Amino acid sequence: MADRPIKELNWKTPLEAARKPSLNQIAKMGICGIMDPIAPGIPPGSDTATLALLGYDVLKVYSGRGALEAIGSGINVLPSDIAFRCNFATVNEDLVVLDRRAGRIVNEDAAKLAESLQKIRLDKPSIEFLFKNTIQHRATLVIRGRPELSTAVSDSDPEKVGEKVSEIKPLDESPEAKRTAKILNELMHKFYKVLKGHPLNKKRAGQGLPQANIILCRGAGTIPNIKALPELYGITAVCIAATSLIRGVCKVAGMKLIDVKGATGTPQTNFVAKAKSTVQTLKTCDFVLLHVKATDVASHDGNIKQKVELIEKIDHMIGYVLDNIDPDSTYLAVTADHTTSLMTGKHEGDPVPIAIAGPYVCRDDVEEFNERSCAKGGLNRIRSMDLMPILMSLLGKTKKFGA
Amino acid sequence: MADRPIKELNWKTPLEAARKPSLNQIAKMGICGIMDPIAPGIPPGSDTATLALLGYDVLKVYSGRGALEAIGSGINVLPSDIAFRCNFATVNEDLVVLDRRAGRIVNEDAAKLAESLQKIRLDKPSIEFLFKNTIQHRATLVIRGRPELSTAVSDSDPEKVGEKVSEIKPLDESPEAKRTAKILNELMHKFYKVLKGHPLNKKRAGQGLPQANIILCRGAGTIPNIKALPELYGITAVCIAATSLIRGVCKVAGMKLIDVKGATGTPQTNFVAKAKSTVQTLKTCDFVLLHVKATDVASHDGNIKQKVELIEKIDHMIGYVLDNIDPDSTYLAVTADHTTSLMTGKHEGDPVPIAIAGPYVCRDDVEEFNERSCAKGGLNRIRSMDLMPILMSLLGKTKKFGA
Repeated sequence: MADRPIKELNWKTPLEAARKPSLNQIAKMGICGIMDPIAPGIPPGSDTATLALLGYDVLKVYSGRGALEAIGSGINVLPSDIAFRCNFATVNEDLVVLDRRAGRIVNEDAAKLAESLQKIRLDKPSIEFLFKNTIQHRATLVIRGRPELSTAVSDSDPEKVGEKVSEIKPLDESPEAKRTAKILNELMHKFYKVLKGHPLNKKRAGQGLPQANIILCRGAGTIPNIKALPELYGITAVCIAATSLIRGVCKVAGMKLIDVKGATGTPQTNFVAKAKSTVQTLKTCDFVLLHVKATDVASHDGNIKQKVELIEKIDHMIGYVLDNIDPDSTYLAVTADHTTSLMTGKHEGDPVPIAIAGPYVCRDDVEEFNERSCAKGGLNRIRSMDLMPILMSLLGKTKKFGA
Repeated sequence: MADRPIKELNWKTPLEAARKPSLNQIAKMGICGIMDPIAPGIPPGSDTATLALLGYDVLKVYSGRGALEAIGSGINVLPSDIAFRCNFATVNEDLVVLDRRAGRIVNEDAAKLAESLQKIRLDKPSIEFLFKNTIQHRATLVIRGRPELSTAVSDSDPEKVGEKVSEIKPLDESPEAKRTAKILNELMHKFYKVLKGHPLNKKRAGQGLPQANIILCRGAGTIPNIKALPELYGITAVCIAATSLIRGVCKVAGMKLIDVKGATGTPQTNFVAKAKSTVQTLKTCDFVLLHVKATDVASHDGNIKQKVELIEKIDHMIGYVLDNIDPDSTYLAVTADHTTSLMTGKHEGDPVPIAIAGPYVCRDDVEEFNERSCAKGGLNRIRSMDLMPILMSLLGKTKKFGA
């Protein structure tokens, strides 16, 4: 949601350009500030940004995106598992990448191919793997077994069209890294063989669609070693989000995941359904994270008009929440997990606006929710990892340090 | 002193509601900001809050309250000693706590009982103990000896009326923890035997007063391993405070303790006597910490009117200091060690206001000393542990980091 001022909006940011009475209302009622996702100038990933928002010190606990995405996709990742993010992709006979997303293959086709891949048996019976497609070309892979495996392996994904698929290499001298690289290369080769000869790919070729004839993997990771929110604060916590990664982060943080009909993690998501679910959930639960992916998608695509419209839809969603909760017993915090610039199409290291409204909050004189107004607010400049302690302190859920 | 906005004060904080020309004068003359005692949202104890105010990184150096309180009570605590906070309390025949404060026993009675307890001999002659009453029901206990002792032991204080006194248990598998727990249980039992049969308790029973028939102990700690302020900055430093804990922290920080007649650590303390002593001390000394406990007491009691009045008394005290120092050669910093909420009666993790006045300070346009105005000040948001380096830098006492 957060962005930089742009010429097309008369040097306003999308938040400044959008009509957003409900977000402004929270700013007016509450205390505002700006917030560095990790530290000033450091662009976060969606994984680190969300972990930080939940109060974790990502510089200490982050252990890769793969496992978070895999958990979000429904795989029960164990602490000793190694997980990867994968793409269905298209290569030619020389293994040169032609399309990193296999024409954004539809979920149904990806699911059929994934099913065939899961039937593969590895040479080492002590090692097993779990492969699961998520949305379109995206998938996750988990490697499990004994003896121990390592995350110190390179990617097979060259992350560029026109380059050859990379051999996976150990990144240190440990026997674990060498073993893991060997297993992965074997698996990638077997995936390729199965996909190449798969009837579905023959059918796609006939339809003029790019074949999903290889799996590219990247970002070896494990689950982060963190204490869950219920344990840390004695709260019940719920996540309302559609994207696997956010769901994975929240699950690792001990939050319950709720499925909302029509919530898709895309600009076409059902905003009001998410708002209704939030209001309903707040009746029985201490903490709800309501996450919207859509503005990030529009920003990556450089779609100015769509981003402004999506902010207005988010505002409408927040309006529903505002109208249907008890303001005397509920705290509302609105913010962005990070800045995605419409101009660069990338995550940026800028601070994001934050507003917190609720009982006994030290209200300031900020009247609008955006990057510039909130910078004048009573919170001054905090970090994303400070937000949870601040909210939990308002709820009376933090433990005193000292006596 | 710091607090949240409350309904009874028209959604002002006590600092906003109080008449405080002198505190405002410092804000006007100086640079203001807000300050997190430890980190945003983390409620500090009085011990960690004061250590942080003196510039120490409590997340690294904090080692429990017991030893700080014991030092403040006048016991010369050694680095290998284990110290506890204790209460004289009242139990029934089944060791169920009836009154955790033995009817807030008066100092004179507590002193007599403490004298009898100190005569007890332990089975192990290599271990000795020091027991000292401080104010009313409060006392400190120090265990000393060889072989080594451990702080990894539980409390005997159940911290709740109606519950049974707890057996002290080792909190880890070390022989030191087991040994320490055993010694303490023996000592607690001997304390109980002496108190139960003490003539003073018979007399109290006759007067209808709760018997102080048991000692409850909690918060095993050692002295923190920190460098003293004179060593760190080459300054002479003095503490003007009445409460044992604050005195203990300051002593550990290498500060000289000054006794002021009429300073009691209560709302009835002699504010002007403390101000006079401060002015006098500043004539020969680089740094004086003038500490007032009273507003914290009023906050814990939820006494809104008293808190506002006490802030006005503090303002009067500060006025005396302002009128009697040389403003061209003296820096004045006013702040709170933490927020104690009148509503929750507890320490909260909110930032506190801070104002620093003196030569060459980069004066801002804040005109009032309170939580909201100071948030707009030129210091922005700092942490308590930043204050000493800032003051010492103004005094030219900090060492360059780098070359």
